[in-house]
Amino acid sequence: MTTESEEKALRYRRAQSVSKAEEITEQEKKVRKLQLDKPIHTPRDSLFSWSSEFNDFTGLVNWGFLMLSIGGVRLGLENFLKYGLRVNPLEWIIVLTGYNEGDRSQYPSVILIVFSIVPIVLSLLIEKGIAVDLIPNKLGIILQITHLLLMVLLPIAVLHYRGNDFSFVGITSVCMLYLIIFLKLWSYTQTNYWCRLGLKKKYSDTKLRRQSLSAPNWKSKEDLINDTPAAARLTKYPDNLNLKDLVYFMLAPTLCYELNFPRTARIRKRFVIKRVLELFFGINLALALFQQWMIPTITNSVETFTKMDVIRITERLLKLAVPNHLLWLCFFYLTFHSFLNLMGELLQFADRKFYGDWWNANNISVFWSTWNMPVHMWAVRHVYKPITGMGFSKFNAGLVVFAISALFHEYLVSVPLQMFRIWAFLSMMAQPPMAVISRTAEIKLGARWGNLMVWSSLILGQPLAIMMYYHDYAMLHFKPTVEVP
Amino acid sequence: MTTESEEKALRYRRAQSVSKAEEITEQEKKVRKLQLDKPIHTPRDSLFSWSSEFNDFTGLVNWGFLMLSIGGVRLGLENFLKYGLRVNPLEWIIVLTGYNEGDRSQYPSVILIVFSIVPIVLSLLIEKGIAVDLIPNKLGIILQITHLLLMVLLPIAVLHYRGNDFSFVGITSVCMLYLIIFLKLWSYTQTNYWCRLGLKKKYSDTKLRRQSLSAPNWKSKEDLINDTPAAARLTKYPDNLNLKDLVYFMLAPTLCYELNFPRTARIRKRFVIKRVLELFFGINLALALFQQWMIPTITNSVETFTKMDVIRITERLLKLAVPNHLLWLCFFYLTFHSFLNLMGELLQFADRKFYGDWWNANNISVFWSTWNMPVHMWAVRHVYKPITGMGFSKFNAGLVVFAISALFHEYLVSVPLQMFRIWAFLSMMAQPPMAVISRTAEIKLGARWGNLMVWSSLILGQPLAIMMYYHDYAMLHFKPTVEVP
Repeated sequence: MTTESEEKALRYRRAQSVSKAEEITEQEKKVRKLQLDKPIHTPRDSLFSWSSEFNDFTGLVNWGFLMLSIGGVRLGLENFLKYGLRVNPLEWIIVLTGYNEGDRSQYPSVILIVFSIVPIVLSLLIEKGIAVDLIPNKLGIILQITHLLLMVLLPIAVLHYRGNDFSFVGITSVCMLYLIIFLKLWSYTQTNYWCRLGLKKKYSDTKLRRQSLSAPNWKSKEDLINDTPAAARLTKYPDNLNLKDLVYFMLAPTLCYELNFPRTARIRKRFVIKRVLELFFGINLALALFQQWMIPTITNSVETFTKMDVIRITERLLKLAVPNHLLWLCFFYLTFHSFLNLMGELLQFADRKFYGDWWNANNISVFWSTWNMPVHMWAVRHVYKPITGMGFSKFNAGLVVFAISALFHEYLVSVPLQMFRIWAFLSMMAQPPMAVISRTAEIKLGARWGNLMVWSSLILGQPLAIMMYYHDYAMLHFKPTVEVP
Repeated sequence: MTTESEEKALRYRRAQSVSKAEEITEQEKKVRKLQLDKPIHTPRDSLFSWSSEFNDFTGLVNWGFLMLSIGGVRLGLENFLKYGLRVNPLEWIIVLTGYNEGDRSQYPSVILIVFSIVPIVLSLLIEKGIAVDLIPNKLGIILQITHLLLMVLLPIAVLHYRGNDFSFVGITSVCMLYLIIFLKLWSYTQTNYWCRLGLKKKYSDTKLRRQSLSAPNWKSKEDLINDTPAAARLTKYPDNLNLKDLVYFMLAPTLCYELNFPRTARIRKRFVIKRVLELFFGINLALALFQQWMIPTITNSVETFTKMDVIRITERLLKLAVPNHLLWLCFFYLTFHSFLNLMGELLQFADRKFYGDWWNANNISVFWSTWNMPVHMWAVRHVYKPITGMGFSKFNAGLVVFAISALFHEYLVSVPLQMFRIWAFLSMMAQPPMAVISRTAEIKLGARWGNLMVWSSLILGQPLAIMMYYHDYAMLHFKPTVEVP
């Protein structure tokens, strides 16, 4: 207790001395004010000195925004002065329809797109066959998988024989469409398989219970809930196996099949109009950016990449990074917000989580699990969970997801370019180690650095891969014509 | 009261129905979970939809930072590839000393800099003369003003006769030094004048009081405070009139004289070392930026400005704006933080408010009153307050401050360029109307827009003025030599 009172006394004395010091300062201030030379200086720190404890730099956000805009406008002007106006919306119609490629009356891309109805119907027929016990369960599954793999390989085969008839944009669209159908039908097949498995288990469970309890009317908790009116409204397997249901799923903005999608009450007209306008202007903006900015930059870069001059390659890469990134942002918004929301609204599909807030992602894993939710949900439901369900570790399941995703990326790039390199595959397979690095950065250096790493890999990684492919493509296609005059 | 109870009942029923609806949703959720198809979709909005009420875009700040950095690095590389390495620290030594200008043994800039001691000593002598009643008060004031005006005009006169002996950097330094000395001595003269005026008034007051009260020992409150030990430590007029005091003021990082500057207790060695390092590396960085980026851009722009092609001029202006702005930021930090703090620390000068947080300024008036505090304090103490004290309006006083500031800017630009244009003067005189516009923007559109206007005027205004001067300079000096081969 003595120490306490001593402390109190000390504190009191200290307070006294402080107040005395303050009194002196007050007196000094008064005296200074009365001086005849009108003094204005007072002891104070500069704002940048640590001791000032000043840290309001909100104006610098505006500064950054303005510097970006000025840089953007200047780049635009420089581009315009160098290349003139290259935007030509008509050119796209030509490219998309393949109209300018001579007087060939066949459009193989269009034929392949129309043909995609066949595997869809086939898939439904096989499911129906299994459901009515026409095809044995195991054989049915094998049939489905074989037919899906054949379908996704079809564009490669057609391209092999009729390669010169395709436009680049045409074959890219075909590949994208076939890949989406593959993912959707895989989900369709697997979900129907789950339903059959569930029904079988339920049946045997009920049988077992009847035998053991000899109470034929006994009902489990699950059965009770399934008897409510809410349950009665739901479609049950195999009532879902009809064309209308499958077509709805094929058009719906999701890759994961389920028997009862959540639905909205009505179609909001204003919402639809907004999305349509966004798509119209956004696509034209993106195409203009591509024609005016991206193509000249890539074309100018081939020679540089051949010479392997590190400084020049870096300069080209950084120059390409900006329009490429802006185009990717356009593409992201138009696809994942405008287009998928439009489809969702028209089909009264209620789950609109097509993307998470990947722009705030603090490590690369979070980015990959939020930027493309349809694919992410598909991968989790149909690859990751089944694999962990089989007893494999989460890490291995994650690796398999990335490997499959890498294969799909390679498919989407190599097939249209008719050039099997492994840049896309390698880029995707570089993601897991980069995820570990960025996670470490996030933990050790803070969330901001993790986020910066995500953005850097996004802004710089893509143009690097594009340049690799374009370099190889140009080497293959343009070099010989130059060397053979 | 009936209505109230009715309302209560209504609210109760509503709550009931809400809970009933919730119950149904809960039930539906449970039912959905039990379905065999493992459903994963739930009704939810996209993050960009207004209805999602999502607004966390903090990651975009990092995005902006990264895009700026990438743009900066790319510009640097492009510049390097185009112009090679132009940084040469030795060049600056040559420029600063005028060493390369033939074998002339006279360095007029250095002579003028050394000569600046003369007006300082002269000013002290005149003050001393007035204090000891050798020179009448009014004559003394006239002498001081005349001698100060002559001093500031001296570089112009010398330049007129020996213009070719000067380097551009040399004459700029001389003008800057003479202007600072002018402002400091003006403050010195006026402050001493205030002291004399105050003493005179006090004397006559005391005399009056003595006559009316016939109490020779009666003391006012002021007198009482002036008798305290705090007051005893202060220097009083005319004890301040000595060389040591004047030299301290001349070196001190302020333009406002007072008899008793606030002082710090000690010189912090670490602080001094940090500032010296900042100055060393910062100056080299700024000079490198200037040689590598600014000079080629300006040189390339002359022709463009002659042709008066609006798009090209805009492109050049925006290209110049970025390095110019970065240089200005370097200059600001080095001068107002590093250099003035170093001087303050060495002289134990305690008032370090050399700048306010102008980067957060929401209108141009705030910017002008915070970015350069020494000049701002001088203008308020020696121009604005005396003018409002004479009964003029605050608006008029403000205009006079801007006019004087405009004259100084013109002096600092026109004299070294030996070319009397009025671009600098006009730029400064455009500030009051722009202040009104930005103030309106701040009020009508919000603080962010005000801040954006301040930054725009800073980033774009300066290079515009520089281009104007450089264009005129190049027209005067380079055109004829090209035309006379």
